[in-house]
Parts: sequence; C-alpha cells; structure tokens
Amino acid sequence: MIEEKGILFILSGPSGVGKGTVRKALFNQDTDLKYSISMTTREKRPGEKDGVDYFYKTKEAFEALIEQNQLLEYAKYVNNYYGTPRKYVEETLDAGYDVFLEIEVQGALQVKENFPEGVFIFLFPPSLEELKNRIVHRGTESPDLVLNRLKEARKEIEMMDAYDYVVVNDHVDLAVEKVQSIIQSEHLKRERIAKQYKQLLEDEL
Amino acid sequence: MIEEKGILFILSGPSGVGKGTVRKALFNQDTDLKYSISMTTREKRPGEKDGVDYFYKTKEAFEALIEQNQLLEYAKYVNNYYGTPRKYVEETLDAGYDVFLEIEVQGALQVKENFPEGVFIFLFPPSLEELKNRIVHRGTESPDLVLNRLKEARKEIEMMDAYDYVVVNDHVDLAVEKVQSIIQSEHLKRERIAKQYKQLLEDEL
Repeated sequence: MIEEKGILFILSGPSGVGKGTVRKALFNQDTDLKYSISMTTREKRPGEKDGVDYFYKTKEAFEALIEQNQLLEYAKYVNNYYGTPRKYVEETLDAGYDVFLEIEVQGALQVKENFPEGVFIFLFPPSLEELKNRIVHRGTESPDLVLNRLKEARKEIEMMDAYDYVVVNDHVDLAVEKVQSIIQSEHLKRERIAKQYKQLLEDEL
Repeated sequence: MIEEKGILFILSGPSGVGKGTVRKALFNQDTDLKYSISMTTREKRPGEKDGVDYFYKTKEAFEALIEQNQLLEYAKYVNNYYGTPRKYVEETLDAGYDVFLEIEVQGALQVKENFPEGVFIFLFPPSLEELKNRIVHRGTESPDLVLNRLKEARKEIEMMDAYDYVVVNDHVDLAVEKVQSIIQSEHLKRERIAKQYKQLLEDEL
C-alpha cells in the first residue's frame, strides 16, 4: 500500500573486523536485500557472469564512467579498476529494493560523498586485541605487516564520525540482528514515509 | 563495557489507534524498559501505591512544579492535573534504563518541546475506516462524538511531522517488533556512542 524507494546500506569498518562474515550471514537470512554488484576492468574468469559477479568493462569505458561521476566509489588494485556503479544502485533502489554494500573504509568515505543519503554502518571490533588476533590468524602476514594493519585499523576507527551507526562485531549473530534492526527502523523514519502516509489519508476522504 | 544513558521513547498517535495495546504487548516482552510513571493531583485509590501507579501531589505542589518547568507535559482532566515528571525520567535515564512513555498527541508535542532528545514514534492507523471502526466499537460514544473523534484523529495525523518514526498498527505483533527495532537501532546511533568507543580505543593502547 505504501510505495517506497529502497535504501542503500553501507557496511564498513577496519580490515579484519569481519565485514564479509557479517554480510554473508545477513544475506543467508534476508533474501529481499540486493547485493551491490561491482564494476571491474579485470578479465572475466571461467564461470563468472557479467551482471552477476561483476560488471566487466574495458579500461577506457571505466575511465569514461569515472569522468561522468558514474561511480559511487572506485579504486585501482594491481592495475585493475574496481568500483560501485551508480546506475545499478539507483535503478535497484527505484525498483523498491534495498541495496547492501560491504566495503573498506576508504571506499565508504567516497560513497558518503557521492551518495550521502545512504545509511552508513560501522562495524567495530570487540577489542583491538581481538582485531589483532584476527589479523594474525589469517596467517598470511609478517609481524611488520600485522603492526601496520593494526595502525591502519586504528586510523580507520577514528573515521567513525562519518557513519550513522556503530555495531560491535562481538558475535556474528548479534551483529546481524543489529544490522537487521537498523534496516527495519530506517524504513520507519518519518521523513522517508510521511508524504506517502498523508497521501493515503487524502485518498481515503 | 560501554556505559550509556538510557533513551526516552514516546509512543503516541491518534485516539483509537491502539497505543495502549501496543505498549502492553511491548512490556510483556521487554522487561528492561521502564514505564514512565505519571504525576497526579487526584486522590490515591485503594490498592494504588505512590511511585508505582502515580506520584501523588497536592494541587499546590503540582503547580509549583509546573512553574519550575519540572513537567515534560501536563494536562488537566476533571479538575485534576496529570503530568510526566522530568526528574523521574532523567534519573531513570541516568541509571542507564530506557524510559517508555505512551501518550496522546497533544502531550507528545509538549514533551517534544521540553525534551527534544526523546525518540518520538507515531502509531498510524491501518486506515481511517479501521480507526472509525475501533472508535465506534468502544461503544461508549454517540455518532456525533464518533465523528468529532475522527476529525480530531485526522488533525492529529497531520501532526506526524513532529515525530521521528511512523509505525502502522496493522497487527499488534508487527507493530511491537517495529518498535523494538527502533529501540535497538537508536542505541546503535553513532552520535550516541562514538565517544565511548573512542575512549575504549584509548584505554587499550
């Protein structure tokens, strides 16, 4: 009865905080949420599908989209671009679906600039000690790299102020439940829906 | 680990919308929530307890509190004052408990002026038709009075703009779940908790 646009939710936080785990657990439960599909210039790998795994573009096409401000955020890794296409996000929101974007802090800050109406959720480590354990237990990094990552994480936590919500990732299930309550309550915000409700009232009289 | 003040939640909406039903169902589930105890000048009835059912005051004492802006809202019915004492609310919040206030629209607007940091939830009727049915089925009112109440309700719905959230009361269980998600997500708002989280970070390093 109430027609409403979707909302863009951005889940972000320091490296090692468990963004991917929370996102996967959330998507296992919430099938209405659409995952934001990234755009890339890297080669399509066997089994991958355009518009499912990524939107695949040439370097020239990607750079043209950058010029046109058609990316909510982008970065270059190992000579390839990766980014979030504005068009896919906006079309999905217009169709009434929420879009969910899981992303590093630097990317989230870019999205904030280009799409301030998004809802920004900061995933917080239960403690720095715990964060350190998680980074160490990935096992792929040298002690120096671990220390650097931890310093980086600390800097990223200072950037919390750009976010709307803070969720501690002490237990995945609890963190997912909190993210779900944020999604639900954002849809109940008066400034999003008052117009439609008042219209409803007009229509009935 | 994070010490936090409680939040004042105000549930309000037009007469007949089912505020009391939603509040009761909520309190059956959520035992941490403290109900805001009103202050009154009416006589204490047998079985009632001061500080439990109401805070009982003389007319003079009540009027002195009005003068001192010690009531978040008040009204006079049948020669007696009823109101929400600021002191009880603030002490309960300071102790870390959320306070829940269920109140008519006029009262909520007074609270909004005196306590703008409260979270204001508007309970919306599923339809005006449904609202009319509920008012009629109370059975205590004449057709003229029903029409007046309906006009009043319509006016009150126009006041939605003073609220933070709108919850449709189509099913009590759904409405309760939505109110719970609002309560949970308000505690996750960055502006409420960023300071404590940053302190946590300082303490650890």
